[in-house]
Amino acid sequence: MHYFDHAATTPLDESVLEAMKPYLTTDFGNPSSVHHYGREARAALERSRETVAATLSCDPKEIVFTSGGTESVNSILKGAAFASPPRARHLVVSAVEHSCVLECADTLTNHGYSVTAVGVDSQGRVNPRDIEKAIRPGETFLISVMAANNEVGTLQPIGEIGNIARGYKVLFHTDAVQAYGKIPLDLEKQSIDFLSVSGHKIYGPKGVGFFYQGKGRELVPLLQGGGQERDRRGGTENVAGIVGLAEAAKRLCGDNLEQGRLRVLVRSFQDRLKELFPDLRINGAENPDQRIPGLLNITLKGLQGETLVHSLDARGYAVSSGSACAAGSAPPSHVLLAMGRTLKEAKQGLRFSFGRHNTGEELNEFLQGLPSVIQGLEMMSSFLDEEEPSKDQNKTK
Amino acid sequence: MHYFDHAATTPLDESVLEAMKPYLTTDFGNPSSVHHYGREARAALERSRETVAATLSCDPKEIVFTSGGTESVNSILKGAAFASPPRARHLVVSAVEHSCVLECADTLTNHGYSVTAVGVDSQGRVNPRDIEKAIRPGETFLISVMAANNEVGTLQPIGEIGNIARGYKVLFHTDAVQAYGKIPLDLEKQSIDFLSVSGHKIYGPKGVGFFYQGKGRELVPLLQGGGQERDRRGGTENVAGIVGLAEAAKRLCGDNLEQGRLRVLVRSFQDRLKELFPDLRINGAENPDQRIPGLLNITLKGLQGETLVHSLDARGYAVSSGSACAAGSAPPSHVLLAMGRTLKEAKQGLRFSFGRHNTGEELNEFLQGLPSVIQGLEMMSSFLDEEEPSKDQNKTK
Repeated sequence: MHYFDHAATTPLDESVLEAMKPYLTTDFGNPSSVHHYGREARAALERSRETVAATLSCDPKEIVFTSGGTESVNSILKGAAFASPPRARHLVVSAVEHSCVLECADTLTNHGYSVTAVGVDSQGRVNPRDIEKAIRPGETFLISVMAANNEVGTLQPIGEIGNIARGYKVLFHTDAVQAYGKIPLDLEKQSIDFLSVSGHKIYGPKGVGFFYQGKGRELVPLLQGGGQERDRRGGTENVAGIVGLAEAAKRLCGDNLEQGRLRVLVRSFQDRLKELFPDLRINGAENPDQRIPGLLNITLKGLQGETLVHSLDARGYAVSSGSACAAGSAPPSHVLLAMGRTLKEAKQGLRFSFGRHNTGEELNEFLQGLPSVIQGLEMMSSFLDEEEPSKDQNKTK
Repeated sequence: MHYFDHAATTPLDESVLEAMKPYLTTDFGNPSSVHHYGREARAALERSRETVAATLSCDPKEIVFTSGGTESVNSILKGAAFASPPRARHLVVSAVEHSCVLECADTLTNHGYSVTAVGVDSQGRVNPRDIEKAIRPGETFLISVMAANNEVGTLQPIGEIGNIARGYKVLFHTDAVQAYGKIPLDLEKQSIDFLSVSGHKIYGPKGVGFFYQGKGRELVPLLQGGGQERDRRGGTENVAGIVGLAEAAKRLCGDNLEQGRLRVLVRSFQDRLKELFPDLRINGAENPDQRIPGLLNITLKGLQGETLVHSLDARGYAVSSGSACAAGSAPPSHVLLAMGRTLKEAKQGLRFSFGRHNTGEELNEFLQGLPSVIQGLEMMSSFLDEEEPSKDQNKTK
């Protein structure tokens, strides 16, 4: 099997598992216990916090460990909403945010908050001016724009957005689940107040993540009880997971060469694909340097992404039709829709996301086999199309 | 080191780590991915759900995996509150619930809800009649009473409480973090609508837990996004952790002999302690059969629990002064206070919680050394007492 779906999840790095092992065996204490076992666990926890803080050049006290990206995002959006002054009941997000951001925003509308979802251009990019226009001074409590989109990889101008937010004294959160460790992030220059990260997207374990909460930025805690994480997130800390996350963060953030390698790899992959399929459509930023390294989302001959995923899976290649979270049901992508695609086109995305273990040879081999796969699918598709119209009508009702 | 603090956390069972390993190495897929890696992960996830459901004789669809006991409790209390009809804004809890229950309840009072905390007797037991009196028909949306107390081990009459709740058409949640796998739980006979469990209290991993949500019982999800867990809990599932949790649950729930062994062990330990220290005070149910197996909370010669913990730690014994979560700060125990103890007495609890690897020999050895430890502390304490009064005054201001 060839794994080309690193935006969905990554294999655990060997060094990460090694780092975790003591905390899955002998050093099993609860960090809140005062005895030997507890102190060992506490020390590992605080070392991990320092490691993670160093990757963002922030104070370890500004790092809050969670169960993952989704918890981080929920903690920030709901926590900032409930901590905001009574008149500040307006939230600005982009239309291409991860579903966890959009669902939190939607829920807040049931609690008396209003939300503006700012659109994107045809490459999935938010215009900072549109964010500025959406701000209601004195009413907007938070702007949440992701650093890089999970489906199409487009980098967002978060520095410009952060600075605009700062100018209006509005808090700024960036979902950096896809970007962290892959592109430079500068909390200060980009005026970032909150930032969310997930462990399993960076060769760390599932079930662990963290968020950055800048000094003095208030959040009402989402998970309460026990007083852990300086009363900001209750629950016994997942020590092994946190140690693994810190090791993964250190490795990824310390390895700029790998991101350069992925950029080269994906650029050559994209060029070769264009040669093979002149009518290839790139979803997201056309220029690979304006996407996160290793990610490419395309539309091939108008074929459904889901169909391609199954067909390639049968040939030993793991790819995705969009976000892993939405996969399985295969609804049209809200990201492609926001980029101006039709309902039909929004089901045609095919995402490649390469990672540490993928090589040029592997990609070449894949490209050699691809035309025959596509040909087979086109034939089947033209046969199926004859039955399609009635089905499509049902779906768009 | 001798570990007598299993109520704080437990070592990972070897079979649990073995079960987890494939999902920390080769089978690393995201369960939401449709390709090979995703399907393998999904299959492991659903097998784990079936395993866990079997321990409670419920439908696998009624099991929702979370990041732990605290998340489970937060999901249920806040989720039930936000799902309740507009007139149902009243919650009943016991005064000895874990801090995560009490903090959630407190937060709900900021959102227009009211809370009744029902008291306990001198052994930490809730009287079901008091629960009944607290119910406001048509207004009470939930009763939350733990199955067993984490600090003193007292079992609560959750069957009686559940049946009362059912009679008034009020939902019933039991925090079974300490009880699960140790005492029989019967969702039907005890009329349980929601039940919370944590992995790391049952020889499973930290950072994972689950809750039971009976069919048709509504909760507004706490963590949103991605549609996981049938839209009841967003976030990529912690597959390795969940597999570990299921293995731990299967082992613990299938091993009644171990609970019998712990009951015998703790009864003899308690009897020997009484012989050694005739003025010994037991905190919680006097009869070990009315506590969770393996747990004993005592007051020894009026010594502070925290002092004893440090002193025993230095001699290689890991014990606790109460809940691990509250440890470190060492405030008076809210559980002991609810049982009618004074502020001073509420700092004197010393909790032993034995587990799978503890033996009678180990406990005998401990008991042999204990009198000299106590003697040393008494001498130090009588010396310190001369300086105590002014300090005490400061603290109770």
